[in-house]
Amino acid sequence: MGVRIDIPSDSPFTIHNIPYGVISTEEQPTPRCAVAIGSHAIDLVVYSTGGRLSEVDPDVEFQEVFNQPTLNSFAALPYTIRQHVRRKIIEDINDFSIDNDCLIPLGTVRMHLPMRIGGFSDFYCSLEHCQNSTAFMSAGTQIPKNWFYAPSVYNSRVSSIIPSPQPLRRPRGVYFKDGDIPIYGPSQQLDYELEMGFFVSKPIPFGSEVKIESAPEHIFGFVLLNDWSARDLQMFEMKPLGPFHGKGFATSISSWVVTMDALNPFRCSPKTIQNPPPFEHLRWDGKEDGAIDINLKATLKRGNKTFTLGASNLRYLYWTPFQQLTHHASAMCGMDTGDLLGTGTISGDATDDRGNKTELGCLYEATHGGTQWVHLENGTKMKYLEDEDEIILEGWCKDKNGRTVLGFGDCMGKVLPSLR
Amino acid sequence: MGVRIDIPSDSPFTIHNIPYGVISTEEQPTPRCAVAIGSHAIDLVVYSTGGRLSEVDPDVEFQEVFNQPTLNSFAALPYTIRQHVRRKIIEDINDFSIDNDCLIPLGTVRMHLPMRIGGFSDFYCSLEHCQNSTAFMSAGTQIPKNWFYAPSVYNSRVSSIIPSPQPLRRPRGVYFKDGDIPIYGPSQQLDYELEMGFFVSKPIPFGSEVKIESAPEHIFGFVLLNDWSARDLQMFEMKPLGPFHGKGFATSISSWVVTMDALNPFRCSPKTIQNPPPFEHLRWDGKEDGAIDINLKATLKRGNKTFTLGASNLRYLYWTPFQQLTHHASAMCGMDTGDLLGTGTISGDATDDRGNKTELGCLYEATHGGTQWVHLENGTKMKYLEDEDEIILEGWCKDKNGRTVLGFGDCMGKVLPSLR
Repeated sequence: MGVRIDIPSDSPFTIHNIPYGVISTEEQPTPRCAVAIGSHAIDLVVYSTGGRLSEVDPDVEFQEVFNQPTLNSFAALPYTIRQHVRRKIIEDINDFSIDNDCLIPLGTVRMHLPMRIGGFSDFYCSLEHCQNSTAFMSAGTQIPKNWFYAPSVYNSRVSSIIPSPQPLRRPRGVYFKDGDIPIYGPSQQLDYELEMGFFVSKPIPFGSEVKIESAPEHIFGFVLLNDWSARDLQMFEMKPLGPFHGKGFATSISSWVVTMDALNPFRCSPKTIQNPPPFEHLRWDGKEDGAIDINLKATLKRGNKTFTLGASNLRYLYWTPFQQLTHHASAMCGMDTGDLLGTGTISGDATDDRGNKTELGCLYEATHGGTQWVHLENGTKMKYLEDEDEIILEGWCKDKNGRTVLGFGDCMGKVLPSLR
Repeated sequence: MGVRIDIPSDSPFTIHNIPYGVISTEEQPTPRCAVAIGSHAIDLVVYSTGGRLSEVDPDVEFQEVFNQPTLNSFAALPYTIRQHVRRKIIEDINDFSIDNDCLIPLGTVRMHLPMRIGGFSDFYCSLEHCQNSTAFMSAGTQIPKNWFYAPSVYNSRVSSIIPSPQPLRRPRGVYFKDGDIPIYGPSQQLDYELEMGFFVSKPIPFGSEVKIESAPEHIFGFVLLNDWSARDLQMFEMKPLGPFHGKGFATSISSWVVTMDALNPFRCSPKTIQNPPPFEHLRWDGKEDGAIDINLKATLKRGNKTFTLGASNLRYLYWTPFQQLTHHASAMCGMDTGDLLGTGTISGDATDDRGNKTELGCLYEATHGGTQWVHLENGTKMKYLEDEDEIILEGWCKDKNGRTVLGFGDCMGKVLPSLR
């Protein structure tokens, strides 16, 4: 008999969640795999001691799989094995069969990047985000036609992906400030982007495609993702090759990966009916389970005050994660365990009583490209992020009565001043 | 006393070269590090047996460093150690001190990707390539102004980088064929791009920059690089996020890395004086050594005939590799050992007696975007690549009298038909 694990009522890490992460502690500084439950991490190396998981598959050396600085070895296991491991952990928690020596208070763990990431591709798939972003551009600017025929996406930078709550530095770069001659200096238009990311589990070999109905089985799980953006650098560099330094200086992700299994109960229909209808290989047929209902929120912490910047939902995406993955694999580039796909900024179209949009996923939209003030609570107004600002992203799944079932934990990041 | 190694007069792998690669053989299928000399590979695991390199640094376990499936461990060693190792190998070859059991005929080795590549960024830095590519676009199309103020670059796909001579498959994708509604099918506009690539040795940590005068010491070495491009897919998808599937389906590199040390004798001034003058952090001061003189050539093999498609030179680049690396690091994204930077297509402006341009680095330029025939020898004409076509890139460094000093070995790739 082990111990009863208390789960605080406001914890994102409920018995319905069991997210995976990579932890270390001051006493044991070697990074290793864990799951989170309530206010604790379960150290999976300790948990799997003595062949505890041998009933799942006697041929898998689970202790070795978990005694790694990333979740890649685990995520590469066949889906049925991973499913069985999660069920066994849930059973053991429910049966008070987790020993004290497996449990580490979350307050004492350091979180690491959960996966070794071979590729990071970021999409641009929220219709509302695109509409809002083009609305205030020069007259006649429209969403490009290609956008409606395939998910728009670019390769982003892997080396600058950081786990919450690691801070980031305001980047320097080249941009137009006043007039026609660009300058090189600290970005003046630092922005956040409210996104989610998902990790590949089962690889798709170089030279082969994937059918959309198989897409979910290639997804290990989801995280929150803040695609920090320096709008001045981005606008300067984007023609013709797309964003580079304007995005590549830092990307934050939440450090616990919520598995596809945990999210399956929240599958739903996407918000928008696609018109024109997608090509056959991107068409999700049948039941209302092509999207996932995850409530998202972005908060600014400035000084000792916090302000809600926007709320949104993963199901608002015009191109769903399953369509994104299928499109990504369609040119046969190959995708490996640990590859990260960012959904792109997720915005909605709801408004408050005063007609202000409340579901904007970045400041570029809210400020109309930096030309208008955003009015926050208490008469505070802002445009872009200042040094020492913190952005906190949250994600929650709810039942039909609106009660919280599970969450992602915070995705936090603080802006440090530029080097010079 | 070991053996005398004969070096055929047309070999790229002279005593002045000593490039590094990763090999395996049928008898010994485990990939490991090697250098090439003449028609042989020197197995560095065997070579470093018995503390042979302990005079270089007694604290480095060279056998372990070389008994790896990539060159990353070696490339991460301090520059002076790598320099010393190369000198010692050259000395031992000259002194007949290489034993027979180190030597493997190149004809029997299988080449692997030389590095574990964390990031692949591809530049767009040849002025002639840009001029040629925009000249036949709609009237008024110009090179964007940002191009002249910082090296233009995008993140590309790592998972589809393949070592010569691995074949690639014609990709499928979405593009406009006739009219206004796009189709999904095999690319009809498959192209090659004549580029070079260079690998990072000494890392640049996340959050820090690099001074341009230090750039060369962060470069492990160069390879030839064919940035295969599906122009129809690329043109469809590029707005606004840049190229993705149009480039990401395959990139070929030559499999032997020619070190910065071997290339230093060929440092020279760039072809073009930059105007406007670059920002201070991108300015290469002083002597005429900001560029590298490497002669490049692209050949098409169609059936049993070969045709020269274009010749060029690395020094033609408007933005040099040292400027590219410095710009890349300037937003503090971090760069790791094994990161690959592609120079972008390298074109020149020379013409033959009939006024035809002879230094074009891709078919997009040569065919004016697929609208004109390219006339090859023997009355053969072509537009884009057909199934079973092979592209062979070569690179050679010459002395002042035009005599060949070293080469890169071929970068080959054959186009296989699309899956359906």
